Amino acid sequence: MAPTSTSRIRLLHETLRRYLKMNAGDHLDKVIAKTRDEDLAVVLSQMLPRFQQQLFERLPTSERKAGVIVEMQAPFGKEMLEPLPPEDAAAILREMATDDAADIIADLSEDQAQRVLDILDDAEQVEELMTYGEDTAGGIMLPDFVALVANNTAEEALRALRRSADVEMIYYIYVVDDAGSLVGVLSLRKLVAAPPESLVKDLMDSDVISVRTDADQEDVATMVARYGFVAVPVVDDTNKLIGIVTVDDVIDVLQDEATEDILKMAGAGTELGETDGVWSNLRVRAPWLMASSVGGLIAAGVMGTFKETIEAHYYLALFVPIILGLSGNVGTQSATVTVRALAVGQLVHGEKNWRVVRRELAIGIVLGLFFGVLIGGIGWAFAQSFFYGMTIGLSLAAGMIVSNVVGTAIPLVLSRLNIDPAVATGPLVTTSVDILGILTYFSIATLLGAFLPPSGAGG
Amino acid sequence: MAPTSTSRIRLLHETLRRYLKMNAGDHLDKVIAKTRDEDLAVVLSQMLPRFQQQLFERLPTSERKAGVIVEMQAPFGKEMLEPLPPEDAAAILREMATDDAADIIADLSEDQAQRVLDILDDAEQVEELMTYGEDTAGGIMLPDFVALVANNTAEEALRALRRSADVEMIYYIYVVDDAGSLVGVLSLRKLVAAPPESLVKDLMDSDVISVRTDADQEDVATMVARYGFVAVPVVDDTNKLIGIVTVDDVIDVLQDEATEDILKMAGAGTELGETDGVWSNLRVRAPWLMASSVGGLIAAGVMGTFKETIEAHYYLALFVPIILGLSGNVGTQSATVTVRALAVGQLVHGEKNWRVVRRELAIGIVLGLFFGVLIGGIGWAFAQSFFYGMTIGLSLAAGMIVSNVVGTAIPLVLSRLNIDPAVATGPLVTTSVDILGILTYFSIATLLGAFLPPSGAGG
Repeated sequence: MAPTSTSRIRLLHETLRRYLKMNAGDHLDKVIAKTRDEDLAVVLSQMLPRFQQQLFERLPTSERKAGVIVEMQAPFGKEMLEPLPPEDAAAILREMATDDAADIIADLSEDQAQRVLDILDDAEQVEELMTYGEDTAGGIMLPDFVALVANNTAEEALRALRRSADVEMIYYIYVVDDAGSLVGVLSLRKLVAAPPESLVKDLMDSDVISVRTDADQEDVATMVARYGFVAVPVVDDTNKLIGIVTVDDVIDVLQDEATEDILKMAGAGTELGETDGVWSNLRVRAPWLMASSVGGLIAAGVMGTFKETIEAHYYLALFVPIILGLSGNVGTQSATVTVRALAVGQLVHGEKNWRVVRRELAIGIVLGLFFGVLIGGIGWAFAQSFFYGMTIGLSLAAGMIVSNVVGTAIPLVLSRLNIDPAVATGPLVTTSVDILGILTYFSIATLLGAFLPPSGAGG
Repeated sequence: MAPTSTSRIRLLHETLRRYLKMNAGDHLDKVIAKTRDEDLAVVLSQMLPRFQQQLFERLPTSERKAGVIVEMQAPFGKEMLEPLPPEDAAAILREMATDDAADIIADLSEDQAQRVLDILDDAEQVEELMTYGEDTAGGIMLPDFVALVANNTAEEALRALRRSADVEMIYYIYVVDDAGSLVGVLSLRKLVAAPPESLVKDLMDSDVISVRTDADQEDVATMVARYGFVAVPVVDDTNKLIGIVTVDDVIDVLQDEATEDILKMAGAGTELGETDGVWSNLRVRAPWLMASSVGGLIAAGVMGTFKETIEAHYYLALFVPIILGLSGNVGTQSATVTVRALAVGQLVHGEKNWRVVRRELAIGIVLGLFFGVLIGGIGWAFAQSFFYGMTIGLSLAAGMIVSNVVGTAIPLVLSRLNIDPAVATGPLVTTSVDILGILTYFSIATLLGAFLPPSGAGG
């Protein structure tokens, strides 16, 4: 079967929408039967709420309903399960991995959550999972895993494995001692290849990396990505094995963290979906715009102090947008590169940081000189005034050099102070660069005005 | 063993650097012996080139040298292997997975690559891998995998598995027919649990998703992430199984794609490292700055046509930065959210897109009205002129509404035209918003000037 490409998803979407509009139940059932939960979820997320509801209700089994909910973004699970009778909701939750069920129950209203937990058999395990912080290893771990006892033989271990029908996918087999403490890891392949009488503890690799339940999910994800693991064991503070974090959850965490960085850089929140409603959108975005307003008012105030210069040479105002635009772009470019290099671990700490800042200074100087001469030259020709050309060229060069260094240095400093550097490229920094740029521009104009008598179109 | 956190990496870095400076060979060897390749690579990437060289040379075996190179970003592998005698380089390459070796040989000079290929035993396989496009499934696949024959029994299959000592990690076991065509997939667990005499074809799941060698690596990664696979089989155009793409490579692809989107949004290239040198940095960034310059010059030209308005009311110029800043920020916010939602597949196609644009229009109107009244009011008070207040308020509202809709619509349109929407938030769009904003601002000022006689500080 070929992978489900964008064009196939579009076709699926159009087919389902047509059948939903026609209320063609039989046709819908046929399409649903031959479509994977993951693909249905992609299409569902594009649909209007009433179609989502209709399609969800047509899913033939609790298992498929569970499968689709797990693939959807919150709050889909809550929306579908909240209005159901608790028995039906529990039947669906029972089909999910315990960590997914815990996340969705945590989203439900307190009443519905309690009613559902009263019915579920593994309520205790679910409730325990709900106690871990959402962004910790405990919050994303799976409490179902395969563990062998170190003193068993390979044959006993294989027999135990055959019995553990509950566990869908075996990534690694962890080995525990009699107290349940993690002591090693073993691949199923090595176990299969071993002589039946050999002991698990002699086959296992005792250099096993684990994480604590309270480890930050981002650190866990970075580690799994770095070491190329497909799972990592989670232990409590007595080193007792209590779950595993699997690579598919790690991918979700990495994607979410990239999303968070991207959105933060624009001052647009930290999560997609967070801004789905008009009001939540305003709540997330307005503070940054407010910061930008304050910066803009300060810039206006700074410009106001140069009233005489502006009134004398109105042409200067025409080049304000280009000076702010170029300085802002240069600063955003270097800040973006630095923030991302920090996020993927290419820039951590050490002597290299100062080299990076020095290099950006060199780049800023080259860019500043080039664009200073270019735009200054155009300004000179445009206004027929050497004074304008000099003012524009010098301020642009100064603005670009400063922006480039500031854009690089701020994320490095923030990272050193353990503050998320992604905020550094947001509206706050763009605005600071604006204020600095205007101050430089009109100061140079005022200064040069005293030495170089202005002339030309604006004089 | 606890995971290697940032603080442990810092400690490791400082220790290694101290020993390198002291030339303390024995101490270095001890630290190297107890550090994982992945962690050494993180520290190495922070080091100056001469320390990198020294540390690399101290790695005790070809296996460890291979392990470290694989974890480093290009061009580290090329830099280390280019000056080595071909025999030594080949010894190191032999320790790598074939796909990694192929990538590094492709980076070497033609001469050195040929000398190395002459020595390598699996040169043919390496050369074949080198023929696939770098960004395709063929370019990231591993040609070593476990495949069983459909007509074998479970017992025969297990025996075959025990012999395949070459394959480090078994993700899934693929099943092929006598012609080598992919016909199914099987988990090792299911094979182990099956009665010895049962046939592989009766145990396997024949609904196996595969990708073609020429499939775009981003599509492959998105698919693996969506379905939660740990590997996906790669077939040629006759459906013959020729390799697998594993989840650790998928994570790298997803990280690289996120990096690409982030950098593109700022007009700062597509890859980290691409901008490591001053000149390559200029080459990547200058075109965007040039585009921004042209936009800025157009903005200056537009402003120039309003010479009389500006000369008559110099105070108008003071609010240019805040109007451009706020409109630009609003546009960047909505463009960023839209670009990311498209990238992670939350926004694909369908009726929902028009809802998104309509919603952004609503948000733009609320934000525009709020900031229009606020900043317009401040402008009124500041300049003691209702005319200024009205001009500023109206232009700000218009600018923010237009920016918000444009910022959302452009990525959606680009995506529909199969153009990468990440370019939409780059300097090009910011600049267009600038030009539109200035045109609106001074048009409104000129228009209102005819109706509302200006007064106050600037009049």
